[in-house]
Amino acid sequence: MAVNLVAPEPESLHPVPGVDLGVAMAGIKRTNRKDLLLIRLAAGARTAGVFTQNRFCAAPVLLAKQHLAQGAPRALVINTGNANAGTGDDGMTRAGSVCEAVARHLGCAAHEILPFSTGVIMEPLPSERIIAGIRAAVADLRESNWASAAEAIMTTDTVAKAASRRVRLSTGVATVTGIAKGAGMIHPNMATMLGFVATDARMPQAVLERMLREITEASFNSITVDGDTSTNDSFVLISSGAGPAAEGEGDLRALADAIREVAIDLAQSIVRDGEGATKFVTVRVEQGVAIDEARRVAFAIAHSPLVKTAFFASDPNLGRILAAIGNADVIDLDAGKVDLYIDEVLVARGGARSPEYRESQGIEAMKKPEFTVRAVLHRGSAAATVWTCDFSFDYVKINAEYRT
Amino acid sequence: MAVNLVAPEPESLHPVPGVDLGVAMAGIKRTNRKDLLLIRLAAGARTAGVFTQNRFCAAPVLLAKQHLAQGAPRALVINTGNANAGTGDDGMTRAGSVCEAVARHLGCAAHEILPFSTGVIMEPLPSERIIAGIRAAVADLRESNWASAAEAIMTTDTVAKAASRRVRLSTGVATVTGIAKGAGMIHPNMATMLGFVATDARMPQAVLERMLREITEASFNSITVDGDTSTNDSFVLISSGAGPAAEGEGDLRALADAIREVAIDLAQSIVRDGEGATKFVTVRVEQGVAIDEARRVAFAIAHSPLVKTAFFASDPNLGRILAAIGNADVIDLDAGKVDLYIDEVLVARGGARSPEYRESQGIEAMKKPEFTVRAVLHRGSAAATVWTCDFSFDYVKINAEYRT
Repeated sequence: MAVNLVAPEPESLHPVPGVDLGVAMAGIKRTNRKDLLLIRLAAGARTAGVFTQNRFCAAPVLLAKQHLAQGAPRALVINTGNANAGTGDDGMTRAGSVCEAVARHLGCAAHEILPFSTGVIMEPLPSERIIAGIRAAVADLRESNWASAAEAIMTTDTVAKAASRRVRLSTGVATVTGIAKGAGMIHPNMATMLGFVATDARMPQAVLERMLREITEASFNSITVDGDTSTNDSFVLISSGAGPAAEGEGDLRALADAIREVAIDLAQSIVRDGEGATKFVTVRVEQGVAIDEARRVAFAIAHSPLVKTAFFASDPNLGRILAAIGNADVIDLDAGKVDLYIDEVLVARGGARSPEYRESQGIEAMKKPEFTVRAVLHRGSAAATVWTCDFSFDYVKINAEYRT
Repeated sequence: MAVNLVAPEPESLHPVPGVDLGVAMAGIKRTNRKDLLLIRLAAGARTAGVFTQNRFCAAPVLLAKQHLAQGAPRALVINTGNANAGTGDDGMTRAGSVCEAVARHLGCAAHEILPFSTGVIMEPLPSERIIAGIRAAVADLRESNWASAAEAIMTTDTVAKAASRRVRLSTGVATVTGIAKGAGMIHPNMATMLGFVATDARMPQAVLERMLREITEASFNSITVDGDTSTNDSFVLISSGAGPAAEGEGDLRALADAIREVAIDLAQSIVRDGEGATKFVTVRVEQGVAIDEARRVAFAIAHSPLVKTAFFASDPNLGRILAAIGNADVIDLDAGKVDLYIDEVLVARGGARSPEYRESQGIEAMKKPEFTVRAVLHRGSAAATVWTCDFSFDYVKINAEYRT
């Protein structure tokens, strides 16, 4: 029961010239479902990636980082159903054999393939089944396949996630289209579980990488479902180069805005489809000393199980939010200065319940499927926004029953 | 449904000479339940306390700290039903008026009273009702009242928590008895929600304080239910001085051991009665570089909602534990060296599934109401143990319905 989220119409996802996508049913974990995705890039395409900070990062993450350092990739291969994490040397060997198989089919080198996996941790990757499925994925390669691609990377997702924009540059119209997956183990630290955004606009590698870092912070690194950072988080930004060049300041800003919109749309989709989510909550922290501090406070609110269960109950037990703010490790925070709002309702002023506040107002605001929690620290001018969902019976149900 | 926890028999709680306890039904939140506790200390008693690190600490915590700095307390007054946190200046005034009322009844100064509150946050303390209840609590004062006292401080606790030991010192037999409360918002940082341990053994203030700090780390600071640190956490250690003197090294060690046993017993009781708990889990991390690192890894496991829901399901989805270890912010952790055990079952060796491991073994171990997760990092010789519970439907139910 995702919150205000439906799968995008396939026609709304603009093809990105220079980027072909092909899917297959490889039977990795279950039969009769799309579970393998191949993304083929035109010669000259540039790729930048950010990856999980989890020390138990998966074999494909290690290999994708190595391959990315060796030069421009020609294809990405993504499987769902198995994360190939906690699998040791065998996991590396199997990820490598998948890359070799793709390279054979596409006529390039194995190090030009970036592998990605998502699914259950600590079970051997069924690489034979993946390799057997590659032929079908190659046969399916086409530019108009984004909707199908979004479906092929789902795990506990209930809705396929994709977004698309067109943006006018001085040199022509550029396209930005992306897909993502993720519903649990979501507190990305560098990237979401998996996100892939491509544009046909041409730009230097250094610009692409700078854009990736800046946009990751504002999108995938600003969401949390359960505070758990996955072993497989990856976000990849591709510039196929088949479209217009992004040249001056204005073009780069317009392009970055479009990519950021797509990335935020995808990141918010992950929260809307968060495991068991019934509420989509924006947490905004204002007037902190530094952005880092504002983010820390916002995540302290967004991670607290007590706050999240109160969201679920539409219960304005808002002292829990103050307690969460107090736990954010802002050493010299003056609790007596903090104001707290739910949407436009002033709940607490100067760290204590506002005299005008009536609980009926809080209930009214929190009953909605979407609302904003806003904390004003009165310490400086830095602000941060993060997005999260509530903590429901279904979160427990989904995670107690996953796998079984 | 607390895990292997029953309220102690009143006779098992040894009176501590020099410490009288009195309870009353003050009708603070509900009628007809014990909700007020007075602890009166003999002249010459010494008291040491540690308090929450939450920046939104409650008014009584601020006042108790101030009063403790002004000299030896003669009494503690504790109410349940209202935390008096997020209440601003009004909360300080009300906590002060409670201390004054107790002081009048006992014939001492207001600064010789330490106030404590627990319950709902951000609602005004009904201090009139508390003050009206003090007379009854004074009339009830006696040494043999520990079981009743444990009941009077419960909130969402389902079982009253108390523990008691006797220990032979060179100068005579000393008694250690304590009570605690807490079931949710439990990730003490300095102390649990509320814990009070008293001994009649005599010792210097500096020794008492050192003992308090050392024992807090090994007990109340080593548990977590939901990772939320309360606004009201306090742990107080009292030496009434009415019993034998703890003099040499041997006496101090024996006494510290007895106090530590009582504190760990109380801390574990809080986890056993954790909101919705169906499992009591010991998390042991060995061969870290430093204790701090081992504790960080242990808490990363104990806090992960994904790990805790797997505990609930008795589902050995043990990759989630590896992922949690990878998130513990141990920068140079070599995942390829980590071994993982559930009780005596070797699950992962060198960061990957052990070839001998059979899933039936994991299920068998995790079905039990109590088991140990043991991670061996192979980095050094430091170890840490923390205790936690699982994350069940009932955790959500309790916290979505609390207050309503």
